Amino acid sequence: MHIKSPYLLFLGADPDPLNIKTSRGIAHWRPENCLGQLSMPGGQTLELEELSTREAANRGAKTFVLGLANNGGIISEDWIPYILEALDAGLDVANGLHQRLSDIPIVRDTADKCGRLLHDVRHSDTDFETGTGRKRSGKRLLTVGTDCAVGKMYTALSIEREMRNRNYRVDFRATGQTGILIAGSGVAIDAVVADFIAGAVEKLSPDNDPDHWDVIEGQGSLFNPAFSGVSLGLLHGAQPDVLIMCHQPGRETVKDLDHCPLPGIGECIDSNLRAARLTNPGVRLGGISLNSRLIPEQDYRRLCMELGEKFDVPCFDPLIDGVGECVDRL
Amino acid sequence: MHIKSPYLLFLGADPDPLNIKTSRGIAHWRPENCLGQLSMPGGQTLELEELSTREAANRGAKTFVLGLANNGGIISEDWIPYILEALDAGLDVANGLHQRLSDIPIVRDTADKCGRLLHDVRHSDTDFETGTGRKRSGKRLLTVGTDCAVGKMYTALSIEREMRNRNYRVDFRATGQTGILIAGSGVAIDAVVADFIAGAVEKLSPDNDPDHWDVIEGQGSLFNPAFSGVSLGLLHGAQPDVLIMCHQPGRETVKDLDHCPLPGIGECIDSNLRAARLTNPGVRLGGISLNSRLIPEQDYRRLCMELGEKFDVPCFDPLIDGVGECVDRL
Repeated sequence: MHIKSPYLLFLGADPDPLNIKTSRGIAHWRPENCLGQLSMPGGQTLELEELSTREAANRGAKTFVLGLANNGGIISEDWIPYILEALDAGLDVANGLHQRLSDIPIVRDTADKCGRLLHDVRHSDTDFETGTGRKRSGKRLLTVGTDCAVGKMYTALSIEREMRNRNYRVDFRATGQTGILIAGSGVAIDAVVADFIAGAVEKLSPDNDPDHWDVIEGQGSLFNPAFSGVSLGLLHGAQPDVLIMCHQPGRETVKDLDHCPLPGIGECIDSNLRAARLTNPGVRLGGISLNSRLIPEQDYRRLCMELGEKFDVPCFDPLIDGVGECVDRL
Repeated sequence: MHIKSPYLLFLGADPDPLNIKTSRGIAHWRPENCLGQLSMPGGQTLELEELSTREAANRGAKTFVLGLANNGGIISEDWIPYILEALDAGLDVANGLHQRLSDIPIVRDTADKCGRLLHDVRHSDTDFETGTGRKRSGKRLLTVGTDCAVGKMYTALSIEREMRNRNYRVDFRATGQTGILIAGSGVAIDAVVADFIAGAVEKLSPDNDPDHWDVIEGQGSLFNPAFSGVSLGLLHGAQPDVLIMCHQPGRETVKDLDHCPLPGIGECIDSNLRAARLTNPGVRLGGISLNSRLIPEQDYRRLCMELGEKFDVPCFDPLIDGVGECVDRL
């Protein structure tokens, strides 16, 4: 999947800031790819220039991006006229919701007629091969976590940006819909057929030059009873040289599963390192990334110190302290 | 997926005994479901009565089963007339090959016209939910392994048969295409979308009476770099009370991946028990099942003794010693 930039970000009419999180992520991490925004009456702003699809196309935009969320992941009827207008103006359309653009006949037919592409980034229609576990050239870093939604994508993008600023040769490899819209390419790994999880990651992060780094976005957790299979297949396919463990102190139970206690961070580090050795015996822990939103700053400082000493790696909240020390130690 | 029995087993024209392995498995494990066979000229026999599709339908057959394999998993052109005849005679058709019956227009159209079902058992078109890790009632046994193709299905079916003979309340739960054709139902777990691996197994093995056993067929191995994600999701979804570790002594490397050494059986038992505790803290090892085909009988006897003592569980080749001692200890 390759989504052409620059983008026109569609923000809809929803006043809930959480529901344009994906668009905000794209604007934050790839401002150079965001030509402007299009809000419906009552919608929010990301402080980008407000453009119609036609204006955006005239200025060189390539893709109209639905970086929106809602309950059920449904493409709203109200959005269809904007989508059709975008296709007619010559833009491809990329969609981060669960419902597929290609399942809406008028959208599919219009895209066909206009010769435009529809990117349903939560789905995977590519044919992959099964994994091989064969050692690939180049270096790989993978963010793993004690749970879903603890900052694996944010940490990976922070590290990629820092490495790029230091002139490393580096690529961010996206494995979820938001990451894919940010990077413009990737594989929604949880949408791949189970047999091909590892194989899809091997394809996502192919052989590269010895000094090149892939910074791979992790998904789920080995301790999440719903998604552990995705996490293990991703870990084995990524064959990381370096793991960054992501964690949200203060969270007591697994996301959306209140009956499941969160694993200890030590147990989680140990399990990930053990499992990762199968496809890369040289794997090591490179840092601990904390999402400290739920705890007071003094607790965060104390925890950083403790974990940093215990595991002998940099421990940081990328939002507070950045990832400089972590990149120093690569 | 529910495949109606009794079956007419289609054996094609292929002289290679390996290529009718699935049909042989059905005839071995479910003779009561096999009304007869249909061979093409030059084909093999399973010593069942040779019947045309029409004769089989007249005697009450419900499903024409393509329990065949070949290079590429393609439905041969030569088979189509038999398939159409079966549909016309009033039989459903079940297919264990990779190519889908429903992708062949004339087969799909004929099935529609005749009101018959096509079961492409290697594929999964069901919508599943994500797993919850919630504890379910009833007892569960899962066969796990040091690799693919070490006897997980054979061991599970042996244990189910032994338990049934002893009047246990028990169901075999199939997770692969051969198992599904034998059981008449199940989920091809490696064909499920990655997000739903554990959820699909939770649905396959739902709440049951406290004294009821599900004997669940395992897939892959936590140490197979291609399929480990499937194995971990299956393990967490199954939440087994008892694991049976299956192993083929004498195999040195992972199936089809000569560069990957096989894990030690102790390491493999340890990793499976650790991981399984996430959804069932009471899990225990219930036995070690050896496929001893590659080693001399005296080596097998010595190894059984050693492993049985070391892990304090019954150790057996189900083909040689049966699974009686293993079931005694449930």
